[in-house]
Amino acid sequence: MNDIDLNADLGESFGVWRMGDDAGVMPWITSANIACGFHAGDAAIMRTTVTLCMEYGVAIGAHTALPDLAGFGRRELRMTPNDTYAQTLYQLGALNAFAAAAGTHVHHLKPHGALYNMAARERALADAIATAVRDFNPTVILVGLAGGALVAAGRAAGLAVQSEGFCDRRYTADGSLTPRSEPGAVLDDADAAAAQAVAIATGGTLVADDGSSIRVQADTLCIHGDRPNAATFAEHVHHALGRAGVRIVAQARPA
Amino acid sequence: MNDIDLNADLGESFGVWRMGDDAGVMPWITSANIACGFHAGDAAIMRTTVTLCMEYGVAIGAHTALPDLAGFGRRELRMTPNDTYAQTLYQLGALNAFAAAAGTHVHHLKPHGALYNMAARERALADAIATAVRDFNPTVILVGLAGGALVAAGRAAGLAVQSEGFCDRRYTADGSLTPRSEPGAVLDDADAAAAQAVAIATGGTLVADDGSSIRVQADTLCIHGDRPNAATFAEHVHHALGRAGVRIVAQARPA
Amino acid sequence: MNDIDLNADLGESFGVWRMGDDAGVMPWITSANIACGFHAGDAAIMRTTVTLCMEYGVAIGAHTALPDLAGFGRRELRMTPNDTYAQTLYQLGALNAFAAAAGTHVHHLKPHGALYNMAARERALADAIATAVRDFNPTVILVGLAGGALVAAGRAAGLAVQSEGFCDRRYTADGSLTPRSEPGAVLDDADAAAAQAVAIATGGTLVADDGSSIRVQADTLCIHGDRPNAATFAEHVHHALGRAGVRIVAQARPA
Amino acid sequence: MNDIDLNADLGESFGVWRMGDDAGVMPWITSANIACGFHAGDAAIMRTTVTLCMEYGVAIGAHTALPDLAGFGRRELRMTPNDTYAQTLYQLGALNAFAAAAGTHVHHLKPHGALYNMAARERALADAIATAVRDFNPTVILVGLAGGALVAAGRAAGLAVQSEGFCDRRYTADGSLTPRSEPGAVLDDADAAAAQAVAIATGGTLVADDGSSIRVQADTLCIHGDRPNAATFAEHVHHALGRAGVRIVAQARPA
Repeated sequence: MNDIDLNADLGESFGVWRMGDDAGVMPWITSANIACGFHAGDAAIMRTTVTLCMEYGVAIGAHTALPDLAGFGRRELRMTPNDTYAQTLYQLGALNAFAAAAGTHVHHLKPHGALYNMAARERALADAIATAVRDFNPTVILVGLAGGALVAAGRAAGLAVQSEGFCDRRYTADGSLTPRSEPGAVLDDADAAAAQAVAIATGGTLVADDGSSIRVQADTLCIHGDRPNAATFAEHVHHALGRAGVRIVAQARPA
Repeated sequence: MNDIDLNADLGESFGVWRMGDDAGVMPWITSANIACGFHAGDAAIMRTTVTLCMEYGVAIGAHTALPDLAGFGRRELRMTPNDTYAQTLYQLGALNAFAAAAGTHVHHLKPHGALYNMAARERALADAIATAVRDFNPTVILVGLAGGALVAAGRAAGLAVQSEGFCDRRYTADGSLTPRSEPGAVLDDADAAAAQAVAIATGGTLVADDGSSIRVQADTLCIHGDRPNAATFAEHVHHALGRAGVRIVAQARPA
Repeated sequence: MNDIDLNADLGESFGVWRMGDDAGVMPWITSANIACGFHAGDAAIMRTTVTLCMEYGVAIGAHTALPDLAGFGRRELRMTPNDTYAQTLYQLGALNAFAAAAGTHVHHLKPHGALYNMAARERALADAIATAVRDFNPTVILVGLAGGALVAAGRAAGLAVQSEGFCDRRYTADGSLTPRSEPGAVLDDADAAAAQAVAIATGGTLVADDGSSIRVQADTLCIHGDRPNAATFAEHVHHALGRAGVRIVAQARPA
Repeated sequence: MNDIDLNADLGESFGVWRMGDDAGVMPWITSANIACGFHAGDAAIMRTTVTLCMEYGVAIGAHTALPDLAGFGRRELRMTPNDTYAQTLYQLGALNAFAAAAGTHVHHLKPHGALYNMAARERALADAIATAVRDFNPTVILVGLAGGALVAAGRAAGLAVQSEGFCDRRYTADGSLTPRSEPGAVLDDADAAAAQAVAIATGGTLVADDGSSIRVQADTLCIHGDRPNAATFAEHVHHALGRAGVRIVAQARPA
């Protein structure tokens, strides 16, 4: 039987500003990536989001980012691996405090935005992140782009890893994501996204942006919580996976 | 025999900017209060400071603050207790990640600057801080102004607490600190500070700013790491305490 | 004939986060208070908002604030008058650059949130703001709470001032605003707000929170751009004033 | 007769943290590049630095930067030209407010750190900066690396420009700067720096990092205010230029 973890980026409000529909998405996912204050989120929002995860039995993950609130962590900022190591520890520890206060612990870590993309390409940066996770707690799962450098760095550091696939992003023929700046990079249609989710979860093929057929090997699928109708979208993907016989479940942490 | 803990506020550099003489002060203290990024410090500096503590066998403490880099956490910012609770957890967890990566844990928490003063006066704020510490880990020691609301809140929350005295700050007749804006509020003379340290540590009297004699009951004494010649100053106080038969030792965490 | 200026707080988005319905409110107001990056707004948003003002012929004002994005400038932060002076110049100059690039200049300045309230109460802070405005350009109009210290400080500095009234906030018997924490502090009903606007603009009486009748002398009325249905609300107030024979017009800057 | 402008980066303290020896450098320079709050500086420091410039008759320049206090603006952050345009206006206007309050105006603008280097290489970014300066006030002089894209963009925008040379940085054979990460990239010896200053100011040759002889055409020379003994260093260069018959003078703004 096929298992898949469904994750979403949550807790991305900041101060008085709201983003996404966290409560609406929660029932349909198994893992949450919670902003840690560097690209979004603040301490009060992190606390609320952790509480919401506890209510829904959703695994708590650290969504670590470049320190860039004004750019939502989407702009490349050249950091040294040393700084990245330290900032990963900082954010992971900050989130873990809320998990600890709620009687649990951080389940996984996934970098956000530009850091996610850089860590998929640059091994030195990926190693810095993986080492920080291992030094903090080697049972935290590291999540990265399927086929990218972060997943390789995590394995090399002895961590459990998850390869991430996207149900609502178009892929290129080599398995990377079509840049958001390209037309058609985001699948707006819930049926198309659900079909891509099922294809990935069941080992089927999907159509890349050049029309070729590719396979994406993924342990977890990302649902974007900031898209319009995110909750309905998540529900749609969730049910499509269920109908296809896929079991939706958070990956167990190593002992 | 009299025991006293000697603490200093360290890790208060930020980015390219340097402050204090952390390495110079380390040999003379037993506990460090490490800035957690809200009033000073950044992730790389926190890591460096934790490493320095490990080298010198100095207990690692979280120096939590109001979110105000530009004002160094010295300006009052009105926060709700809920926000204070969440921000205390955030900073405590962030520092603990560096401690965890170094194979240890946070020993104590002491609020910084304006938050220190507000928590000494306002019980609701003090309760928020004490509750956050307890919810994170009830074996973390809470440090507050001797006789202040934070120490009371810590005791009520079931935490081990430390009452803090100051060797280089003048006291008022009621045992609070003479505001820094007053002349003579800071003891610049190392001999005077050493004498005040010995008086506090041995249960003797000291002269308040109105000339009256008072006693200050304290478990830990603060050495300011950002004063001129901080290392020499710390060494001077350290030796004076030793000559007076005071044992300088970090308070043990509860089991 | 009665004249009134209708102002709204705009440009309060930040980075990817949106707030308010600026374009919807613009047709119904004569003056905009534009966030200057301290409590909200960023350079790109300031530019967009200035452009919007030019399209609608709305006067451009600086909505200066305490440096507190995370608290949206609504939390009291104790600043020295010197810092307030410098930060007022900074924000006023920053906004004026966008006005200058658009071929115009800043028409007025109104402090935001906690700074607004502090400047209405504390003359030293009010003087710092008024002096900064005068030193920058003495033809910029200073806007403050009717009857408050800022208006007095502005007059003393030789500035043109505007006393501000609120159509959707309840008043106390002494003419100050009922705190937002009190029930009924905000008038949610558009008809009630429109009636209060007409009463203020025509010198009529309005009902204070203790049931007494008061008069509020105001040159400009604030429309909150971040309330639900802000555009409809603004349109409603605008038309009610028109039907009552009030001319809605931005106050002319002194020569 | 040869003229040269001597500039230094000043006002790079932040909050309680100090950097450089601004007062010591002032007597020896003709132009100051003042941090505008994005990489360093805050409103109070900007005010102080402008006052210092007025006392010494030093021309006031905006040292605009990427929004990165933690990295001192030295890390590349990928910004869109639109954001760069808006942030240039913001910082230029903010500084100009202090100049206006002091009865003068901003004389020049020079990007800082990573933005300086990016603007020397990338024409789209350079055009964004040049356009912002022109839209604010076309008599502000634009300063960029000799031979770089910013100088070209400034000329294309109709601005007066200054090509900048460095007396204490090694050059490569093609006239760009040897990266700071390379050994010998910074000339620590005051005599060597003074000799390089004279060579640049008098049209002589200097030795590149590969040993070849090059000429650097420059209108202004940068003195680093944050180096050890910056004041003595600046004085040394100043006198060496004087002995070589070079007139040290700020470039006049166009009418």
